[in-house]
Amino acid sequence: MIHNYQLDLNYIASRLEGLEETIITKIIDRAQFCVNETIYQIGKSGFAGEDQRCLFDLRMHYHEQMDAAFGRFIVPEERPFTRNLPEPRRQVTIPESGLQIDDFEVVNFAGPIRTDYMKLVKEICRPGDDAQYGSSVEHDVYAIQAISRRIHYGAFYVAECKYLGNPEAFDPLIDARNTTGIIDLITRKEVEENIISRVRQKTAEMQKNVNTDVRNVVNPDLLVQFYRDTVIPLTKQGEVAYLFNRIRTGDNSSSRRDDYEYSFKW
Amino acid sequence: MIHNYQLDLNYIASRLEGLEETIITKIIDRAQFCVNETIYQIGKSGFAGEDQRCLFDLRMHYHEQMDAAFGRFIVPEERPFTRNLPEPRRQVTIPESGLQIDDFEVVNFAGPIRTDYMKLVKEICRPGDDAQYGSSVEHDVYAIQAISRRIHYGAFYVAECKYLGNPEAFDPLIDARNTTGIIDLITRKEVEENIISRVRQKTAEMQKNVNTDVRNVVNPDLLVQFYRDTVIPLTKQGEVAYLFNRIRTGDNSSSRRDDYEYSFKW
Repeated sequence: MIHNYQLDLNYIASRLEGLEETIITKIIDRAQFCVNETIYQIGKSGFAGEDQRCLFDLRMHYHEQMDAAFGRFIVPEERPFTRNLPEPRRQVTIPESGLQIDDFEVVNFAGPIRTDYMKLVKEICRPGDDAQYGSSVEHDVYAIQAISRRIHYGAFYVAECKYLGNPEAFDPLIDARNTTGIIDLITRKEVEENIISRVRQKTAEMQKNVNTDVRNVVNPDLLVQFYRDTVIPLTKQGEVAYLFNRIRTGDNSSSRRDDYEYSFKW
Repeated sequence: MIHNYQLDLNYIASRLEGLEETIITKIIDRAQFCVNETIYQIGKSGFAGEDQRCLFDLRMHYHEQMDAAFGRFIVPEERPFTRNLPEPRRQVTIPESGLQIDDFEVVNFAGPIRTDYMKLVKEICRPGDDAQYGSSVEHDVYAIQAISRRIHYGAFYVAECKYLGNPEAFDPLIDARNTTGIIDLITRKEVEENIISRVRQKTAEMQKNVNTDVRNVVNPDLLVQFYRDTVIPLTKQGEVAYLFNRIRTGDNSSSRRDDYEYSFKW
């Protein structure tokens, strides 16, 4: 096996940890605006000729069209939320990932991320409408992309790394499509508790001395709950999806060939 | 005179203060990637058919094309960095600004903001190249837009507000094109020192407990220096530009008519 730093568990854990501040600050930035329900309602985007998508989905799609041109979705952990995206206009060379999968889109969890993010917005933002629709959807996109990157990065790299450390345990569970068995094997309760306690502490400290007359403060419990109920479980579901579709080298009856039932086309 | 909350100095100061966290966190996010000099070099964008613009300028332009479609530049303090932008595709209604100017673009400081931001990047980021070009230019755009919003917001609203509080003092200085006199009149040293000390404290506190193995820490002095040498002086130059081009009601020989020499076409 070729040594690849991208499959070193310490490296992966440090990347996941480094993304926490980015996620937290982007969620806090979104929380400076009201919920602004209108931006999530179809038919109210105010866009000429657009009555099928809400303003948030339109912003997401425009943003991803730009991102696609810049080559974002060539990167495994950057999975798009929208369809019909253009080919990259830019030559992008990324380091060899070491991942054993030929279609990253079978591990696309954009659907459930969007659903849970919508609930989060209602909890972190003040209710009501401040007419800041443009800024709200802009920050929605920044926040949800940061969350998505973290979940998909974990799904791909943690799964591959853990698999490589113990293929004999994983192979029979994969062959038997034993989701629960795989979830048990990849779960490290103490690691999860560490993450959650870091998120709580970071969210509190970043906002400790803000002037509450000018900034809306996000309750750290809400971020903790989001990590506990969404980020961590979806990462693990993503790991299962990756493993079910993983190409087993040296095994021509590769497990993934005829198996896209766990590919989450939301 | 109609009372407009947007021209209340306390309201303006609180908006400026509330933008500080956003600016600081976006700069810190950019600093998680290396300088990546290549992204600022013309001819190295890797974009098909694009040899006249660097990757950063291309990203900026794509982003602003999207923003323009969403109506961003209808807002006074949102001044674009690039040209040839499309008309808004969205109907945007913004609150009456109370500003006495008919072309916001005469107060566009994008040029010097870009120049100073380029210097800042070299100071806050680790030197060298980590191949994260896409993420670097993405976070460049987020950071520079947040900085620009703050400078232009101050330029427009602080100037109008101060003018309304003391038109007798401003009118002769405006008529005489007395830049120094206006700068003296709008400068409040103690307010500036307050801002600077807040920025230092916020930057330090936000990063107090980060794991320096996984996050690059930005020295608060660099943010302080950027506020002192760029944000505050450019805001004041913007106030002068606004006042030189302000339409004086009831005065048909309005000061701005023939005077675009202070409109900073960078």
